[in-house]
Amino acid sequence: MRGSLVLPYRSSLATPGRVGRRDRWMAARLQSVVGPAHVRVELWDGSSPAFTGTEIGRLVVRDRGALAGLLLNPDVWFGDGYVQGRVEVVGDFQEVLDRLSSMTRPSRLSWRERLALWFAPANDLFSSRDNVHRHYDLGNDFYALWLDSQLVYTCACFPTPDATLEAAQIAKLDLVCRKLALQPGDTVVETGCGWGALALHMARHYGVSVKAFNISTEQVAYARKRAQREGLDTHVEFICDDYRNVSGRFDAFVSVGMLEHVGRRQFPVLASLLQRVLKPDTGRGLLHFIGRDRPRPINAWIRERIFPGSYAPTLAEVTTEVLCPADMSVVDVENLRLHYARTLRRWRERFDQSEAVVTQMFDETFARTWRLYLAGSEAAFTSGWLQLFQIVFAPAGGPMPHWLRPAHRTTT
Amino acid sequence: MRGSLVLPYRSSLATPGRVGRRDRWMAARLQSVVGPAHVRVELWDGSSPAFTGTEIGRLVVRDRGALAGLLLNPDVWFGDGYVQGRVEVVGDFQEVLDRLSSMTRPSRLSWRERLALWFAPANDLFSSRDNVHRHYDLGNDFYALWLDSQLVYTCACFPTPDATLEAAQIAKLDLVCRKLALQPGDTVVETGCGWGALALHMARHYGVSVKAFNISTEQVAYARKRAQREGLDTHVEFICDDYRNVSGRFDAFVSVGMLEHVGRRQFPVLASLLQRVLKPDTGRGLLHFIGRDRPRPINAWIRERIFPGSYAPTLAEVTTEVLCPADMSVVDVENLRLHYARTLRRWRERFDQSEAVVTQMFDETFARTWRLYLAGSEAAFTSGWLQLFQIVFAPAGGPMPHWLRPAHRTTT
Repeated sequence: MRGSLVLPYRSSLATPGRVGRRDRWMAARLQSVVGPAHVRVELWDGSSPAFTGTEIGRLVVRDRGALAGLLLNPDVWFGDGYVQGRVEVVGDFQEVLDRLSSMTRPSRLSWRERLALWFAPANDLFSSRDNVHRHYDLGNDFYALWLDSQLVYTCACFPTPDATLEAAQIAKLDLVCRKLALQPGDTVVETGCGWGALALHMARHYGVSVKAFNISTEQVAYARKRAQREGLDTHVEFICDDYRNVSGRFDAFVSVGMLEHVGRRQFPVLASLLQRVLKPDTGRGLLHFIGRDRPRPINAWIRERIFPGSYAPTLAEVTTEVLCPADMSVVDVENLRLHYARTLRRWRERFDQSEAVVTQMFDETFARTWRLYLAGSEAAFTSGWLQLFQIVFAPAGGPMPHWLRPAHRTTT
Repeated sequence: MRGSLVLPYRSSLATPGRVGRRDRWMAARLQSVVGPAHVRVELWDGSSPAFTGTEIGRLVVRDRGALAGLLLNPDVWFGDGYVQGRVEVVGDFQEVLDRLSSMTRPSRLSWRERLALWFAPANDLFSSRDNVHRHYDLGNDFYALWLDSQLVYTCACFPTPDATLEAAQIAKLDLVCRKLALQPGDTVVETGCGWGALALHMARHYGVSVKAFNISTEQVAYARKRAQREGLDTHVEFICDDYRNVSGRFDAFVSVGMLEHVGRRQFPVLASLLQRVLKPDTGRGLLHFIGRDRPRPINAWIRERIFPGSYAPTLAEVTTEVLCPADMSVVDVENLRLHYARTLRRWRERFDQSEAVVTQMFDETFARTWRLYLAGSEAAFTSGWLQLFQIVFAPAGGPMPHWLRPAHRTTT
């Protein structure tokens, strides 16, 4: 989220006036876009364009500026309009987002998306730190309101549909360890370690030594304290530094939820990192990341307001631009996108319960921003706009420590 | 294997003469290439160039033509030379091949490989039939000598290192069924069904109806007879036709060991096939194929003598050129390359035991060709030159029937 959300609206456009002919024309255009999702458009005077079909919810547009914006740049204006109360959703918020998200997706990119792919951000050392700081240093208290008790802020893995979020996060941590075929005494490097739950799980349950990197100062401070409290600080070292500065050789590399922030322009750097840090004989690694079926930039509003510099790559981009130049073979890939939809559902349920506290901590704008971000992300994973890939890889031609261990591939 | 193996040697070059200065120079060059694999070069007069290091085997070159050929076009000349007895391997045949295969692989392609990628064969309806006929219609009796009792001629999946080939093939058939999350009553289309083992397994153990396509007349005749004998011919229809002629809508698509014969130029055709035959809501599919870490043509000798028209694609090629245009999401990928090495080992052990029978069925040249093909393929999978991928996919945004079924991902 960028700073205090000063949104670039011209207030003159925001004054609602009488609904005129041009407004009705724009509303009809908008209705033809959202109609297939069974969503009715309603204007500021309560009128609606012609709409046939079952209505599952309404998109209430409160002024002419928002109406024009929704036609011209729908992703950004839907987000900003909702946050400012200029666009409202009446009906089941999640269902409306799910329906809008599930409408047939154009396989061709818009010119705006093409430009966004073309002018991908560099994500150098400085801008990465800035991007991470703005999102992950919002205060551990805030995240504690709606994450699980270990503060795992990545896709969980639900052993059963009604497993608790706590259990599903532990299942995910353990799945990652099994996929890495960790052995006591192994050395592991983790990049982008969040609040440290995976590093501590690996050390406690698999007897490995971990160096865990993260550039979020708040997260590292929290993780170090937790390691000390749990007597694991001799096995887990939390390092407040950029992933590009990792040195040494390790048995395993793991990165959960960082690749989205790396950006394509840094993939060659990540490739040389993998080649440099993994032992050529016994090494293996795991990348867990939000991905895509085909190249496409992240939703513009999310990119502007939530995760600047982010990019969700395709499997082909990761294999061609990261693993192949690093001379790594793909061992195993799993797509957990529906597990992420469920994880986000649990987060948002908790978030909704704490919305009053969040509003008090920050403000109404912030609370609405986060509500939309969580619900919109759930919709994106449910509808298949976004994927969640776990890739296991190992140096090409190596012994592939997994290949006769059936346990590693069980998601429970 | 192309016809009766009339090899393109000029017999004048094949006369061994006195070892001269140029021969010694060529031998030294060859020694510097194979030296890192601990293989000593020996010329037709018993002499060897300087060689330091542990010797694990010898490459005996019996004439000047073969010596020059090994330097100029090593893949083809090693194969043809071995088959004709102009190049011999002294020592453990498999170990020598493994070592030669494990030498550091150049990531850059040779000009010969670039040309082969550039001039990829069309694999149209006619040439596909011809390619398949030459390999798969060598007689079921021949394959029965060294395959398992169900004649499964693709990578097995070993639940334990010393499982029998029979058990490992059944484990593979069942793994494929679980990955497809088959339900009684489902309709399945299989392309490239071999002798029918998978189609029959699916019908018998999962209660599904199968249409199984294959253009090998001998295989289809065998499969139909087996279905009748086992009372499964009401559930499994074996169709002697090209995969491109599949029509209808199915719950599941499966293809085990066919994609290698499809060729990249036909990938768009396969993509539109998938889109056409899979039910958009509940459909899912599995592609099991020999693949690569990076784009590279099949070994020239294998391409010339064993599998004309074959190409082992990368994961990126399959996702970008087949699954993405078909609007499919990757659900799951598994690399079984070491299972294929083990499968090939078992096949070759059986083949070696039957070598006298094979020689009687065909001739010495044929037996040597197949011995090298099996051993060389094992070496390629052991050393990581080749991969074996199983990709599970489903229509983008669909319900992904697998996601909460832990059992489907266990390799045992």
